Amino acid sequence: MKVKEIELKGHIIDSFILPKVFDTIMDFDGEFEVLQFEIGKHKTDPSYARILVKGKDRRHLDDILGELHKVGAIVPEIKETKLEPAPKDMTLPENFYSTTNHPTYVRLNNDWIVVKNIEMDCSIVVDKKKNRAFCKPISRIKKGDLVAVGKEGVRVEPPERPREYSVFEFMKSTVSSEKPNQIIVKQIASAIREVKARKKKVLVVAGPAIIHTGAGKHLARLIRDGFVDVLFAGNALAVHDIESQLYGTSLGLDIKTGRPTERGHRNHLCAINEVMRAGSIKRLVQKGKIKGGIMYECIKHNVPFVLAGSIRDDGPLPEVITDVIEAQNTMRKHLKSVDLALMFSTMLHSIAVGNILPSHVKTICVDINPATVTKLTDRGTAQALGIVTDVGIFLPMLKKEL
Amino acid sequence: MKVKEIELKGHIIDSFILPKVFDTIMDFDGEFEVLQFEIGKHKTDPSYARILVKGKDRRHLDDILGELHKVGAIVPEIKETKLEPAPKDMTLPENFYSTTNHPTYVRLNNDWIVVKNIEMDCSIVVDKKKNRAFCKPISRIKKGDLVAVGKEGVRVEPPERPREYSVFEFMKSTVSSEKPNQIIVKQIASAIREVKARKKKVLVVAGPAIIHTGAGKHLARLIRDGFVDVLFAGNALAVHDIESQLYGTSLGLDIKTGRPTERGHRNHLCAINEVMRAGSIKRLVQKGKIKGGIMYECIKHNVPFVLAGSIRDDGPLPEVITDVIEAQNTMRKHLKSVDLALMFSTMLHSIAVGNILPSHVKTICVDINPATVTKLTDRGTAQALGIVTDVGIFLPMLKKEL
Amino acid sequence: MKVKEIELKGHIIDSFILPKVFDTIMDFDGEFEVLQFEIGKHKTDPSYARILVKGKDRRHLDDILGELHKVGAIVPEIKETKLEPAPKDMTLPENFYSTTNHPTYVRLNNDWIVVKNIEMDCSIVVDKKKNRAFCKPISRIKKGDLVAVGKEGVRVEPPERPREYSVFEFMKSTVSSEKPNQIIVKQIASAIREVKARKKKVLVVAGPAIIHTGAGKHLARLIRDGFVDVLFAGNALAVHDIESQLYGTSLGLDIKTGRPTERGHRNHLCAINEVMRAGSIKRLVQKGKIKGGIMYECIKHNVPFVLAGSIRDDGPLPEVITDVIEAQNTMRKHLKSVDLALMFSTMLHSIAVGNILPSHVKTICVDINPATVTKLTDRGTAQALGIVTDVGIFLPMLKKEL
Amino acid sequence: MKVKEIELKGHIIDSFILPKVFDTIMDFDGEFEVLQFEIGKHKTDPSYARILVKGKDRRHLDDILGELHKVGAIVPEIKETKLEPAPKDMTLPENFYSTTNHPTYVRLNNDWIVVKNIEMDCSIVVDKKKNRAFCKPISRIKKGDLVAVGKEGVRVEPPERPREYSVFEFMKSTVSSEKPNQIIVKQIASAIREVKARKKKVLVVAGPAIIHTGAGKHLARLIRDGFVDVLFAGNALAVHDIESQLYGTSLGLDIKTGRPTERGHRNHLCAINEVMRAGSIKRLVQKGKIKGGIMYECIKHNVPFVLAGSIRDDGPLPEVITDVIEAQNTMRKHLKSVDLALMFSTMLHSIAVGNILPSHVKTICVDINPATVTKLTDRGTAQALGIVTDVGIFLPMLKKEL
Repeated sequence: MKVKEIELKGHIIDSFILPKVFDTIMDFDGEFEVLQFEIGKHKTDPSYARILVKGKDRRHLDDILGELHKVGAIVPEIKETKLEPAPKDMTLPENFYSTTNHPTYVRLNNDWIVVKNIEMDCSIVVDKKKNRAFCKPISRIKKGDLVAVGKEGVRVEPPERPREYSVFEFMKSTVSSEKPNQIIVKQIASAIREVKARKKKVLVVAGPAIIHTGAGKHLARLIRDGFVDVLFAGNALAVHDIESQLYGTSLGLDIKTGRPTERGHRNHLCAINEVMRAGSIKRLVQKGKIKGGIMYECIKHNVPFVLAGSIRDDGPLPEVITDVIEAQNTMRKHLKSVDLALMFSTMLHSIAVGNILPSHVKTICVDINPATVTKLTDRGTAQALGIVTDVGIFLPMLKKEL
Repeated sequence: MKVKEIELKGHIIDSFILPKVFDTIMDFDGEFEVLQFEIGKHKTDPSYARILVKGKDRRHLDDILGELHKVGAIVPEIKETKLEPAPKDMTLPENFYSTTNHPTYVRLNNDWIVVKNIEMDCSIVVDKKKNRAFCKPISRIKKGDLVAVGKEGVRVEPPERPREYSVFEFMKSTVSSEKPNQIIVKQIASAIREVKARKKKVLVVAGPAIIHTGAGKHLARLIRDGFVDVLFAGNALAVHDIESQLYGTSLGLDIKTGRPTERGHRNHLCAINEVMRAGSIKRLVQKGKIKGGIMYECIKHNVPFVLAGSIRDDGPLPEVITDVIEAQNTMRKHLKSVDLALMFSTMLHSIAVGNILPSHVKTICVDINPATVTKLTDRGTAQALGIVTDVGIFLPMLKKEL
Repeated sequence: MKVKEIELKGHIIDSFILPKVFDTIMDFDGEFEVLQFEIGKHKTDPSYARILVKGKDRRHLDDILGELHKVGAIVPEIKETKLEPAPKDMTLPENFYSTTNHPTYVRLNNDWIVVKNIEMDCSIVVDKKKNRAFCKPISRIKKGDLVAVGKEGVRVEPPERPREYSVFEFMKSTVSSEKPNQIIVKQIASAIREVKARKKKVLVVAGPAIIHTGAGKHLARLIRDGFVDVLFAGNALAVHDIESQLYGTSLGLDIKTGRPTERGHRNHLCAINEVMRAGSIKRLVQKGKIKGGIMYECIKHNVPFVLAGSIRDDGPLPEVITDVIEAQNTMRKHLKSVDLALMFSTMLHSIAVGNILPSHVKTICVDINPATVTKLTDRGTAQALGIVTDVGIFLPMLKKEL
Repeated sequence: MKVKEIELKGHIIDSFILPKVFDTIMDFDGEFEVLQFEIGKHKTDPSYARILVKGKDRRHLDDILGELHKVGAIVPEIKETKLEPAPKDMTLPENFYSTTNHPTYVRLNNDWIVVKNIEMDCSIVVDKKKNRAFCKPISRIKKGDLVAVGKEGVRVEPPERPREYSVFEFMKSTVSSEKPNQIIVKQIASAIREVKARKKKVLVVAGPAIIHTGAGKHLARLIRDGFVDVLFAGNALAVHDIESQLYGTSLGLDIKTGRPTERGHRNHLCAINEVMRAGSIKRLVQKGKIKGGIMYECIKHNVPFVLAGSIRDDGPLPEVITDVIEAQNTMRKHLKSVDLALMFSTMLHSIAVGNILPSHVKTICVDINPATVTKLTDRGTAQALGIVTDVGIFLPMLKKEL
């Protein structure tokens, strides 16, 4: 039997850290012994635990510790982070450390250094000269990069439960549609205002159902009014937004009456063709061909947008980044200072953005399909608050509250 | 090979009647020969078809004709409806005619007599003395009732496509959530006004999600303003409506703030207990214990309601009809003059009511779960228009339009 | 500010009891002070906590304590349970104690007495002479029944996490369809065998999709082979089971070829009529009219079944209990010794049965619609393990494993 | 008022072509007059209709004709297809003809020329010298390409209903899960055998849920046994397939026991890293690092595969085509001779492949989420047969039938 001592600090009981530690050990058929435990006596006091974890053998113990590490357990004797060079481009050393999306620190020269740009499922690369550490996806690894290996000398800080009631705790565990949604709209509106007041950024991730349901003008309004700092979307959102501006239709249904015109597909291809003729969405706007809509407001108000390509795309529009890795990297550049992410009706983009968001970014996912939210949280974006509702009537209400 | 001549009349092409006839014959591996066909030359002209249907044997032909009969095919040589007495209570003669939910006529004394109270999956009972015919569910059959058997002498008139565009044709074939819902709200509002203008009735079938999502007050308002003529619901709607009036909660969540109070279950039991103490919902209202809400408005404005029991019920409240067959029969009594049925967020009640509605009643089913609408139409309520959206924000919008 | 001391014992950390206590206090904006805490040092050692809970006033404190009580917190100074007589039939005294579905004890004559037939959302009635306590739904309360009021002298024992890995912990938190279902089938098969080995009962709650998907014969086989001790279902399951035996169809689709015969509705009405003619399902079987199927096997092997009515029912069959309260009470009688409940494809019956099951009954809910499982657990059947899959291919696999 | 004569030929009634023509005219508030109508007297006889379509003005008439054209209506006086040069790369002339996914012909030199590689939402480019016509997406248009404009001289042949019963007609209109799925499995198996017997190709489009549900080995077996001619998938399918081969896990859950190992994310990153180290999936197989699985069988049996990138991808693997337009074009190259497409549990790839499939390719979409099928058919892949079931137990059954 192999043993290892771990330490936990903070609001570890009500933030479900200590329970998860015990649970995990038992899920893995391990054993534990609590060596020391000091409970926080009041709600603002931190707790402290020192626990001996026991595995059947080295591998078993390592499996358990790997999991415990992710929820914030640290090994008390502080060691330097071990580093190994990447053997070639886009290849990691064998025992590379795999990141979570929580704030992470590496031990360099007896000091804890924060890992920059943290996101899940990446590796940590250290610049020894500058004494700095970066989170890097495997696609950006260069031969010789010094990569953190093993778990020693790496510290993770999972998020703690806020000390008071917050909308982001509300309905945390379930994805039910039977909730008082009008109230939630108000709470989200106040969360947006609060983020703006702190001079932080609001990211909107938007799917084309916004246009199909006639809610495009409401999102456009939010952009015009300065509530959106950056927009991530795909080709379809931009195409149907422009289609609705040029022809008053979305997928060929008249936005105002809901009646079919010459249905769908020709109009969206014409919209693409008009952009092609102009050269870009930006040129289309500058030429005065469209006078409103989501893309128009982004361009007029200098709100940066990233249109990421997908294999479903018609066209695509010139601004669409067709290489998915380049699209990911472009999105990463815009995440700085983002404190709130609003995801509207897009499973693909929501999961993709969830993958690169650090866990401290408050995330709200609005979708009529509960599976979108379930998948988002299953894949590690545990901070996401899911709201199962109709974006076509949610957005007008949100606009009204702001 | 056995053959039989059938006849079809009306807008049989664009109402998909003739195509379904051909389709059905081929699905059943039968053959056909078109004897006569006169097409309506303009959109208001009826068409006429005379077709020889061929089956491998008598049984095969009967199977095919059974299906064709339901879409309106009639056998040209007009025979009297055959009648046989029911052998005992709640038992039908062997070859009983099984109804559709379309207008139906029986041939008595060389005359076509309309079948009253038509609904699907029932039998036809004839009162020879009074020369009248009634649709009866098996549970109400009495020994000796004269029941229609076979298909001869029975005529069905399936609904025809309206000659102009209507919201009830719109999105008919699919149950998609990507539709411009704000427009649909307007169109439904105008359908309600149009029914009221014709002095016909609007039926609302309501599930408890209306209360949980905070939309109860909007439905209450529609009742107060006279847009609802009859309400069908279950115990839970009434309980949570009263809970929200007494304690400001629904399933224990504060309706105004969305925050938990002492959660859920105690409050709804207390609401039940208060009604029990008063003796009935009506007495509770009369005693002034509640001052608003759906049940309150129904009672104050003499809008009849039927609360049908289910095995999930807590309590139930005194007005709840715990015998399901009695509940069905009570609902049937209130369907007279109903021309529009609005179903909000209840799969059980929507399907149950769908079962007893004639096909001419325009039916709108609003539910966040697409399966509710799919099941409703799969089970024969083909006229239902499904709207996949959040009732919690749909009802406020509907109220605003009215 | 009002304060009260509470006590917690057992595996309160990894069973999420202590975290929920802290969480709840903070959700309610309360304060706490930990007076004493002794942590279980090994995985089989219990922990102990004594906590001072603080509320703004008496009502606030009571709200918090009401919630804490449900997760097992007890007030250390042991008082007798307060009792008050019911003011009239079906009416409870004002401050009645509302039950959870966990094992519950009342304090009578300085002794802890277990409450029999515990289920959620009921009241506790004490028989002082016999020194016994019973859980009773409001519908069965008689005037003068001695009902427990307040929370003092009532103790709840929420379930603890098992000390080793179990299928019932697996995927507990999420209802995802992306799980290795073949493995789960094996684990459920072994759970069934284990329950049978302990001479306990397996309850099956079954919806008609079992018949529509062609899986009826597999459930029939499980009944014949003795794996099912009691069956709860509705009219539709029995009707379509008998329809499939008499005519080889379910809702009119041929069970073997999937092709339409004379579609749907006539066959199921004929099946109802055949039962009516025979007098009951039992008589139909005894007369040899059907030779197999779910109902046949139940009757042949003396497996008791309860068919509960619903307002959707056609017919219904004579064995169907049309009064929903009588149906609930009949189901309650069959729950004795049930240790495992398998719920297949029926939202209505699953939630209804979940309402009356004590929390120690392991519950598995198989449905292709994730909403069924979400609603089941939202409504308090927290022990339910949800499996989102197709019952039509799940049941054959389960049969193969048994 | 403007008028135009159109012609329709074939099984236009039971293939719902004529009804759709009338329906469309009325949806658009147009008028019609039937000039000539000859009905096919037997089920193999074609029908013929000549209809005068009336619109309020030129634009209204054009809108109506645009729709009618898509369902196969043709203008009797045969004119040459009008051609205009593309004004620049990736830009079409104003009035470009937008394709459907049905067989399409252009009129060149008094001859009907078939348009090669037809797919929806593209344009038609004519090579005048070679007298040939091609379907081209806008992204491949070169300056000066001769593009078909207007609708004159273009003929579309929508699919007709087969003259006998077929699984592909079965349940066509609805996406219900209550269907006898075991039968459908048999029918799909025989459809696969029938396509192979005709020496045509079977395409499989596969999502990672296949691996997560433990069904990977069954798909691998189908590939080994020669039932799959080409595989389209994404990075995740390949990664988790290789993860399951290297470590016995999928997203970190043990494939055999379903229990967590060191959970999820590290293992799939290690799998990516192993492929990176080897240089490619192909090299990994050649080096003998994996001995089975989907990718292994593809490589061993020379079954071509296309891995298309998405913004969700980790890694991605070297074989993944990260540029989405290049990925589309590569998929197009593999569609030749494909007569059957099986889509398993992937909304993104199913819709993307649906976009580029001609309508004659029989398409079966298996997904536990009904929304996938609804979206697929909503977006024009009307031939898709949707099966709402669990791929984890569907694939084992399919393998058994083959």
